[in-house]
Amino acid sequence: MTELDATHDGAARSWLAAANAVGDFPLQNLPFSVFRLRASTEAFRGGVAIGDQIVDLAALARSGLLHGSAAQAAAACAQNRLNAFFDLGPAAWRALRQALFALLKDDAPSATQAALGACLLPQAQAEHALPLQIGDYTDFYTSLDHALNIGRLFRPDDPLSPNFHWMPIAYHGRVSSIGVSGQRVRRPLGQWLADGAAEPAFGASRRLDYELELGIYIGSGNAQGEPIALAQAEAHVFGVCLLNDWSARDIQRWESTPLGPFLAKNFATTVSPWIVTMDALAPYRVAWPRAVQAPALLHYLEDADNRHSGALDIQLEVWLDTARQREHGGAAERLSRTSFRHQHWTLAQMVAHHTVGGCNLQGGDLLGSGTISGPGEGEAGALIELTQSGRKPLELGNGERRGFLEDGDAVLLKGWCEKPGFARIGLGECRGQVVAARSAAGG
Amino acid sequence: MTELDATHDGAARSWLAAANAVGDFPLQNLPFSVFRLRASTEAFRGGVAIGDQIVDLAALARSGLLHGSAAQAAAACAQNRLNAFFDLGPAAWRALRQALFALLKDDAPSATQAALGACLLPQAQAEHALPLQIGDYTDFYTSLDHALNIGRLFRPDDPLSPNFHWMPIAYHGRVSSIGVSGQRVRRPLGQWLADGAAEPAFGASRRLDYELELGIYIGSGNAQGEPIALAQAEAHVFGVCLLNDWSARDIQRWESTPLGPFLAKNFATTVSPWIVTMDALAPYRVAWPRAVQAPALLHYLEDADNRHSGALDIQLEVWLDTARQREHGGAAERLSRTSFRHQHWTLAQMVAHHTVGGCNLQGGDLLGSGTISGPGEGEAGALIELTQSGRKPLELGNGERRGFLEDGDAVLLKGWCEKPGFARIGLGECRGQVVAARSAAGG
Repeated sequence: MTELDATHDGAARSWLAAANAVGDFPLQNLPFSVFRLRASTEAFRGGVAIGDQIVDLAALARSGLLHGSAAQAAAACAQNRLNAFFDLGPAAWRALRQALFALLKDDAPSATQAALGACLLPQAQAEHALPLQIGDYTDFYTSLDHALNIGRLFRPDDPLSPNFHWMPIAYHGRVSSIGVSGQRVRRPLGQWLADGAAEPAFGASRRLDYELELGIYIGSGNAQGEPIALAQAEAHVFGVCLLNDWSARDIQRWESTPLGPFLAKNFATTVSPWIVTMDALAPYRVAWPRAVQAPALLHYLEDADNRHSGALDIQLEVWLDTARQREHGGAAERLSRTSFRHQHWTLAQMVAHHTVGGCNLQGGDLLGSGTISGPGEGEAGALIELTQSGRKPLELGNGERRGFLEDGDAVLLKGWCEKPGFARIGLGECRGQVVAARSAAGG
Repeated sequence: MTELDATHDGAARSWLAAANAVGDFPLQNLPFSVFRLRASTEAFRGGVAIGDQIVDLAALARSGLLHGSAAQAAAACAQNRLNAFFDLGPAAWRALRQALFALLKDDAPSATQAALGACLLPQAQAEHALPLQIGDYTDFYTSLDHALNIGRLFRPDDPLSPNFHWMPIAYHGRVSSIGVSGQRVRRPLGQWLADGAAEPAFGASRRLDYELELGIYIGSGNAQGEPIALAQAEAHVFGVCLLNDWSARDIQRWESTPLGPFLAKNFATTVSPWIVTMDALAPYRVAWPRAVQAPALLHYLEDADNRHSGALDIQLEVWLDTARQREHGGAAERLSRTSFRHQHWTLAQMVAHHTVGGCNLQGGDLLGSGTISGPGEGEAGALIELTQSGRKPLELGNGERRGFLEDGDAVLLKGWCEKPGFARIGLGECRGQVVAARSAAGG
């Protein structure tokens, strides 16, 4: 687990004034993305967010401001994906963080500030791409409250699968349809079986939903057949982003027996552009909710004293921005708020379980946390839970109602950490907008 | 659907005598792989099998023997993966097939034969790698007999999922652990719940199995949100290989609720090195077994007159080669034999279903057919079916018994097509060997 160091000092300030205002990207955060000038034909390259600016890592690598492994790390970020940077490993990731912190801190020499200033682009002028060539995408199911909420809807007598307390359940997802924030998501066509119907119907999904998740990027992997032990698991994680696992509930229910979700999920997944590093998240750890775990975990998942992992207190919100709200200048509306700290399984346990059978992870792999729902009212991370499977639609402030998503709806995920004595650091935003289905008559 | 042409002429002969003997790789086959000289540090590059030789496509591209789109296609094959070749599309694939056929046919000029002879490497001296950078791997479940066999074991009153007749069921698989024939597969560690037990056990899987499948390589994909219609679906397929979907049945049963198989499958998948093209398979089409389909399919899967697809009569066998057989010079033993023609869903239906919700396929994606089991005795494609979930072990000729696989067992898949008036063409072999688990005490 990362030790706290000078880069976590809540009192540290940047010479860039915008980085000292309340926002997602103070000096203590320094998340990574790939970006270019919006609507340009420039090559995408790695960048680090600071205040309302992006440090262009390709420009920084050329600037001569960096030396040693930090310089090597910045040079690896000059490509359109961060895989080569990930391949350098934790020491290089940390060296670049430390160097950027020093360059951006208010006591940096004025010549340094001027040289670094030449490497900045305003975030408002940038567009992003997927930060990694993702080899495999695995979606977990680690929220006890989500599992119970869903279970109570469909299996009220036996809501929780008996394996839930014994392993972080997961399944493989689709890589090709993962897009970055701003993605336009076409409502999927598919089959479903209406209640009481003898034969399935075909058409545009009528029960389109979002799922609030964290995305977890694997920084470095393992050889096939060689599991990663819990004690080492977190060192294999580079950082996290926001992730919306769009889900068609009608398609999902009909297709998922016996092998799990397929078309209900694989039409789109949206991630936020910025990856907040495990180093930046270190101050916001809290004890893992051990009390609700099974009485005796299998040894490869056991972390009784939180030495190897622990939970992360990441505040999370889901906002809905409807077409009518946009047309009439209305504000987006918050649908839920919770924290990642409630998850039943930790990042380290997810990595240890994923590899225990010998499956090889690779740098750039993406794990989804599964829907994040907290224990309280208004803490559910999907409409199916908030609306009791559509039976109790949400009433929006402008009079609209939502059982599930409608065309034109944009879903916005937000996340941040805050703690007395430390900076507030944010994950930025993950936005995706539903567009109408193709005609079901074609094809 | 591919029209038959001169390259399918069963009477055609090659100037390479070995190509005219009974074997997998006559002039009419011309399958693709990537290869290099065994145990060398050469770069892998594309090759085409002919008789007992490989045509080195990088050497052929330099030879000056090809022109136009065939030359362009061979040049694209000079890389260590065939993705750039796939990206050229069906016209280029076909041009290279036609050109290779002409160069290898017995009426090729002697100067051509000499020049091409300089591009050959004996298969016995070659080693292979995965032929594609696989973006996503999807495993289907398209055998009615397999679904019934499995269903009767675990749900005797209701063996078949009600959606089976309405869609080709599928789930996403793991790309990183796919290996090429010759793969050594470490027995996975994992959890399972023994019958009657209150808590799961942890250790090396005791119910390790193989699954006989075809692998189907997507040649060209579709844009996200734009389904591929059934009429166009097969034009997106490049060809097929043999695929062993190794499965740990004890782990699978305990983990698969509610989201499907995960660690039970993701520790390894083995494919054969050679990809037999859809062009080469054209003569071996048979009518799709429409009679057993649901009475009225949804329109996007409907192909009543087999215009757009049809079944493929590919003969398939599974052989077991145990450590004791090898030590005592005993022969490998055939465990089952069937044909791909019994599958309930066609390749075109698999592609149309996969994309109907908007999921984007990409060139180089791999689809698994799902376990291929035929209707008769000895036609099941997995031990769990052949042994009634281990209750009726197979008796091998040397006195060994097998409920499931033991350490040292090698599983060999073979496949070929034959039909009066046409050549016999084969898929080569897919071999994988089980090695002992890591100690369960570690990690």
